Amino acid sequence: MENISLFFLIEAIGTIAFASSGAMTAIRKRLDLLGIIILGETTAVGGGMLRDILLGRVPPSLFINPVYVIMAFVTVLILFFIIRFNQQIMTGPYIVAYEKIMNIFDAVGLAAFTVTGIDTAAMAGYGEYHFLSIFLGVLTGVGGGVLRDIMAGQTPYILKKHVYACASLAGAIFYVYLSGALGSNAAMVTGALLVIAIRLLATKYCWDLPKATADEPK
Amino acid sequence: MENISLFFLIEAIGTIAFASSGAMTAIRKRLDLLGIIILGETTAVGGGMLRDILLGRVPPSLFINPVYVIMAFVTVLILFFIIRFNQQIMTGPYIVAYEKIMNIFDAVGLAAFTVTGIDTAAMAGYGEYHFLSIFLGVLTGVGGGVLRDIMAGQTPYILKKHVYACASLAGAIFYVYLSGALGSNAAMVTGALLVIAIRLLATKYCWDLPKATADEPK
Amino acid sequence: MENISLFFLIEAIGTIAFASSGAMTAIRKRLDLLGIIILGETTAVGGGMLRDILLGRVPPSLFINPVYVIMAFVTVLILFFIIRFNQQIMTGPYIVAYEKIMNIFDAVGLAAFTVTGIDTAAMAGYGEYHFLSIFLGVLTGVGGGVLRDIMAGQTPYILKKHVYACASLAGAIFYVYLSGALGSNAAMVTGALLVIAIRLLATKYCWDLPKATADEPK
Repeated sequence: MENISLFFLIEAIGTIAFASSGAMTAIRKRLDLLGIIILGETTAVGGGMLRDILLGRVPPSLFINPVYVIMAFVTVLILFFIIRFNQQIMTGPYIVAYEKIMNIFDAVGLAAFTVTGIDTAAMAGYGEYHFLSIFLGVLTGVGGGVLRDIMAGQTPYILKKHVYACASLAGAIFYVYLSGALGSNAAMVTGALLVIAIRLLATKYCWDLPKATADEPK
Repeated sequence: MENISLFFLIEAIGTIAFASSGAMTAIRKRLDLLGIIILGETTAVGGGMLRDILLGRVPPSLFINPVYVIMAFVTVLILFFIIRFNQQIMTGPYIVAYEKIMNIFDAVGLAAFTVTGIDTAAMAGYGEYHFLSIFLGVLTGVGGGVLRDIMAGQTPYILKKHVYACASLAGAIFYVYLSGALGSNAAMVTGALLVIAIRLLATKYCWDLPKATADEPK
Repeated sequence: MENISLFFLIEAIGTIAFASSGAMTAIRKRLDLLGIIILGETTAVGGGMLRDILLGRVPPSLFINPVYVIMAFVTVLILFFIIRFNQQIMTGPYIVAYEKIMNIFDAVGLAAFTVTGIDTAAMAGYGEYHFLSIFLGVLTGVGGGVLRDIMAGQTPYILKKHVYACASLAGAIFYVYLSGALGSNAAMVTGALLVIAIRLLATKYCWDLPKATADEPK
């Protein structure tokens, strides 16, 4: 029971962070209210939707039990009205503080969604398919952001920067392969903490993966 | 029987309008004949395909009974040859008249596809899931256009303008929630008319939804 | 048995070619190692994944038996390290020779994936649905490249050039409609050879499909 409450809490934090990131992308692109809602929702629940389609869980669970859809909707609306009535907020010191907090929330969300994705694969009977489980964990974590970027017409964030998908991947591999040795719960919590740690350290120290060609090609 | 004929007629109008809009996007992007066919077909049948995937109706019905695929194909070919052999048509007064007619056809199509999407959800046994029904109605209506825009590399139309998805959404909500009170047929027709009315009025009076930030940010 | 080995060989050639094309797109876009892997994998196995989703074969076969995923992964890694430690290779004569070979590999892959797509539809019990079979053949052939281009933010290749999807389409139609007359194996091999022939001739002679408007519109 406590586990469920804790899990719900970290998924809620992730939903709020992802919905905010989609909404901010839309606001920066100067989309209207509906566009802001669509990008916010897509970022928050898109990864889970793609996972469910690949697992054949249709209609995807977000439609059957739309609690996270509603949570994302409320988040987007609050953000919209705060910015609408405080235009200067987008350039002031608040935005810096806001982005620092959201960066932490986003790392928590990435961790929560990654482990949820792996659990969903296990519940659907594919726990033994390690590659599938890991892929679905990462997809649940980063899929919403990829959809957001494709719809907003920008190169998907995960293709470019900040060891984002890598953090999710490391946590997913840890959770899947150490469930046997550590027990499912301990592996899940440690995997999730690993995602958060890698993500925050990568942001702080600007870690980047190597590229194939040198940095100034011209 | 009469209902079926009428329904087929308005779906046909929608298919022609959506196929034309995809083809014109491709022609303006200077794609070749195959690109024009692909974008025309995607716009015309893409929304229904996404709906069927989310409902688990696979292969999607368009592949089992490709009548609308053929209709879109013929539409695109006719448009291609008319423009190919009348190059000046793209700049003359004809294009203005053509776009006015197509705008009305498009509104009819949006209405027809929205209510079809809701009916498909009901036939698949999800009539009681209101959020799912409404979402599938809007997706059937606007999904083809979103795929068209993503493939053509432009920001999806529904994210930007003209109360397009909103018209579909208003009609979908009306149909789903008033089916009980008005009877299914009356709610469907009224919902569809509501889509058309909102869409045409929004175009005529340039309705727009609010944005989060003021209109001249620089 | 010999058939299986041969088939595996040509699918392997296709996987290598498609993975390389995705990786080179990512390298040219200056993405990091993970971005290169993602685009390489998407191009190599994305078409088959879309086909499986449309057929309701979920989870898609690539997750259950990831042999081609691993093959694409190794291809991408080799390419990455070759270019990483031989930066001048990207501008020298090697790249010209490399692209010539890859162009042939790519044609073989397009042929292999097109006929696999049709076989998969037949195995799923949809052999009699000719439109579906042909569509799934073409989708398996070109779908990975479309996903690659959408993720990389460029107009999908098949919408623009070189009779690419057309070659796949011609081979698919040949295979589906002449299976009865020629026998399944003969129709498959001839269909595949037709794809390769059209594709290579189109590249050599710069075949293009007609456009709707004249070539210098300004």
